[in-house]
Amino acid sequence: MSALDRLRQALAEVADLERSAAVLLWDEETQMPPGGVEDRANALATLRRLAHERFTAPELGRLLDAAEREVEGMPYDSDDASLVRVVRRDYELDTRIPAELVGEQARASARARPIWQEARRRSDWSMFAPAMATTVELSRRLAESVGYTGHPYDALLKLNEPGITTAQVEGFYAQLRDVIVPLLRELGAVADRVDASVMDRPCDPTIQVGFALETVRALGYDLERGRQDLSAHPFTVSFGPGDVRITTRVGRSFGDSALLSSIHEAGHAMYEQGVSRSLDRTPLCHGASPGVHESQSRLWENLVGRSRPFWEWCFPRLRAAFKEALDGVDAEGFWRAVNRVRPSYIRVDADEVTYNLHTLLRFEIEKELLEGSLDVAVVPRAWNQRVGSYLGLEVPDDAHGALQDIHWCTRLGGFVGYTLGNLIGAQLMEVVRRDVPDLDARLAEGEFRLLLEWLQQHLYRHGRKFTPNELMERVTGQAISAEPWIRYIRSKFRDVYGLARPS
Amino acid sequence: MSALDRLRQALAEVADLERSAAVLLWDEETQMPPGGVEDRANALATLRRLAHERFTAPELGRLLDAAEREVEGMPYDSDDASLVRVVRRDYELDTRIPAELVGEQARASARARPIWQEARRRSDWSMFAPAMATTVELSRRLAESVGYTGHPYDALLKLNEPGITTAQVEGFYAQLRDVIVPLLRELGAVADRVDASVMDRPCDPTIQVGFALETVRALGYDLERGRQDLSAHPFTVSFGPGDVRITTRVGRSFGDSALLSSIHEAGHAMYEQGVSRSLDRTPLCHGASPGVHESQSRLWENLVGRSRPFWEWCFPRLRAAFKEALDGVDAEGFWRAVNRVRPSYIRVDADEVTYNLHTLLRFEIEKELLEGSLDVAVVPRAWNQRVGSYLGLEVPDDAHGALQDIHWCTRLGGFVGYTLGNLIGAQLMEVVRRDVPDLDARLAEGEFRLLLEWLQQHLYRHGRKFTPNELMERVTGQAISAEPWIRYIRSKFRDVYGLARPS
Repeated sequence: MSALDRLRQALAEVADLERSAAVLLWDEETQMPPGGVEDRANALATLRRLAHERFTAPELGRLLDAAEREVEGMPYDSDDASLVRVVRRDYELDTRIPAELVGEQARASARARPIWQEARRRSDWSMFAPAMATTVELSRRLAESVGYTGHPYDALLKLNEPGITTAQVEGFYAQLRDVIVPLLRELGAVADRVDASVMDRPCDPTIQVGFALETVRALGYDLERGRQDLSAHPFTVSFGPGDVRITTRVGRSFGDSALLSSIHEAGHAMYEQGVSRSLDRTPLCHGASPGVHESQSRLWENLVGRSRPFWEWCFPRLRAAFKEALDGVDAEGFWRAVNRVRPSYIRVDADEVTYNLHTLLRFEIEKELLEGSLDVAVVPRAWNQRVGSYLGLEVPDDAHGALQDIHWCTRLGGFVGYTLGNLIGAQLMEVVRRDVPDLDARLAEGEFRLLLEWLQQHLYRHGRKFTPNELMERVTGQAISAEPWIRYIRSKFRDVYGLARPS
Repeated sequence: MSALDRLRQALAEVADLERSAAVLLWDEETQMPPGGVEDRANALATLRRLAHERFTAPELGRLLDAAEREVEGMPYDSDDASLVRVVRRDYELDTRIPAELVGEQARASARARPIWQEARRRSDWSMFAPAMATTVELSRRLAESVGYTGHPYDALLKLNEPGITTAQVEGFYAQLRDVIVPLLRELGAVADRVDASVMDRPCDPTIQVGFALETVRALGYDLERGRQDLSAHPFTVSFGPGDVRITTRVGRSFGDSALLSSIHEAGHAMYEQGVSRSLDRTPLCHGASPGVHESQSRLWENLVGRSRPFWEWCFPRLRAAFKEALDGVDAEGFWRAVNRVRPSYIRVDADEVTYNLHTLLRFEIEKELLEGSLDVAVVPRAWNQRVGSYLGLEVPDDAHGALQDIHWCTRLGGFVGYTLGNLIGAQLMEVVRRDVPDLDARLAEGEFRLLLEWLQQHLYRHGRKFTPNELMERVTGQAISAEPWIRYIRSKFRDVYGLARPS
């Protein structure tokens, strides 16, 4: 048996432990009775600790050394060379992180979740603050373990988005802010051109969930290898390419319906379902990074699910499902309503234009927490001040402010992935449109196969073989850039609001 | 840190792995999409192998040696002394069983299940015979690994029911047969006194499942620490005392309704929910043995759920739920119908009187297979001949005979637990009645708390601290005995059929 085969065997065991942990987490969020919290936290901590121990064992390091010699001369993009290259990168990082820290994070995260839920229910940051202090402290220790030369945030990026630096992210945000703020002013002046009142009309939650499931199945989410459940916070989880599940949330009106949440998660799920079987039970059997993952959820949610051709296809179906609830509305009007731009408190409800401002303020707060220049107790003050200056809103309470996201139960550093995803999605879509010139006509017919196959072919099947920038260079010819998103957003929203498009 | 503390830590890790495997299995049976089969089998195999490896590691043996010295002089029934004593017993057994055999059994069992399903569908024993030959062969190797002095069946009992021998079980069955056969004759002569036609009336499956859940909640199954789902084969699974789940099946008539299946599983589940928190994440955090476990499922199902006072309470509720479907029936009539005695082919549908004959014939066949005195090919002949002589029935085909149970996909030795459970349940109930003289009046009021608290106090909280006979001696003053069950069954069924009770 070659070293590479033995390496694959050891990695398969780690993958099994991680997938088992994923099943436990999915169950916790969708099925578990309240009494299970403590034992579940223990079981998850054990699984994650064992996975970490086994992945960072010296024996795996020796197999990796030997496998590196075996794959010498193989093509860079071959499965074997990519496996060894990515595992080497993971191994170097993970061996720097102490097993105790991994276990502590798992336990702290499981404990923080019910506290966060209760704190959000009561809208009381001070109740969550001790858990948040733990998150910050553990994230700081994580950054110290991983190491960094510039900002500690670089260490968190190194874990999530290899090849991308804090300075680059700051650069992207500076570009975006310079475009978004004047665009918001421009759209604000013609706000009355979009009538979004249909979004407040009630619609039956049970019908919504069924409609959302049928829609994502039409997009290409394979239900033989997936299912949809309800959870407070929608998410996608993969237990291997044969079982990739989504959850959704449901409200009582078109404005907070399950549909776009389900499409978002189905975007993640189709990515995971599309990873090549040859990468199964290896660390490559996932999307390339959180940012690239988010590019797929947000591509399907926004660039497809909020596009005019999508609603040309979807609106008649929606009308058939909800009947008189949609009286007096047409596809064009519904498309505009779905795209109404209005600064709001809640990130997950934000329109495409303001969305990046929500992640920007979190990115800034996280940097300051990591540096120690911001105290956990006053996070709401820092939050509310930025919501005022970026979005022009006064935050009414912590539930609509610093307590809205579950992410801080676990660790800092996750929010920039959404913005990277927005940029990557727009950048990819420019290339799709070049390769599939009649894309809009196909989408308007409910023919999503061409798009899905393009993404499977160029992106999904590669799993984690390439870094985000490697992928983008292979597929689009250049590294991640903010320009395509800026072109997209300027063009689309001037169209939504009936303004002259920029020349 | 003491050796005992380090032992507890190592055991907690093993418990977490086993609980994780249990979550994966529950999910597989109740939630998993079809595409997940292959990856799930891999993940389960890894978790089980790791749990076995870690439990049988030499380091655990050394900790156990040292912990034995630390608990010297502690009371026999203390948590610490009991933990060390039971872990020593498990360790000695598990280290005798080669890891390859454990793996072979898991794989053989997974392979046998679809073959068994197809063979049962076609009612063709010869199709299942090769898989059965493997089961027998692996059970024999298991018995050889464990070791025995008398019959190889003793080794299988040692694994399941420590302290109980094949000879004892044979003694119980001889006593039971001597009582059941004449009782069946006696009841057969007055068969027309019980009208069970109500059991064939249709009743809505959705209402059934809700009604069953409300009923088990009333019995004391804690839904803050549990939940009920549907599955092909009902089962109970514990992920720790804070999360013990049941599944149920549902048919379309009162005769195959979800209710008694749910009560049976809730009996298992209340036992697991009642184990002392101080035993959490140790090998003691389960019921004492399969037999003692079955005593609780069958106590709640039969000694409560098929008792007259239970139906005095339950029938008005049932009638409110199902309305005119129960026209012309009263509580007394329903109670009699639920207890109608009639020899049948299928064990899981058997009444209380004939049930033990079903397990007896399996016990006899398993012994002969282990000895090698019966060939796998002719199991149906041996089966059908015994059904004829014990139950007076002619088996129409293998699906209603030797192919009816899933157990033989895995290993021999499981069926006697049901009969031990019947005996233990009746033996415990005699003591409950002594301690709670107005029990029937309480049950008839829907007041189940006294019974549950008694069982928690005397049985549930001890978990696996004691062997079945140790437990029975502590609680009832004597080892497991067939006498209480014989008294119970004679008295109850003469009552059901309106015969004079024995003096």
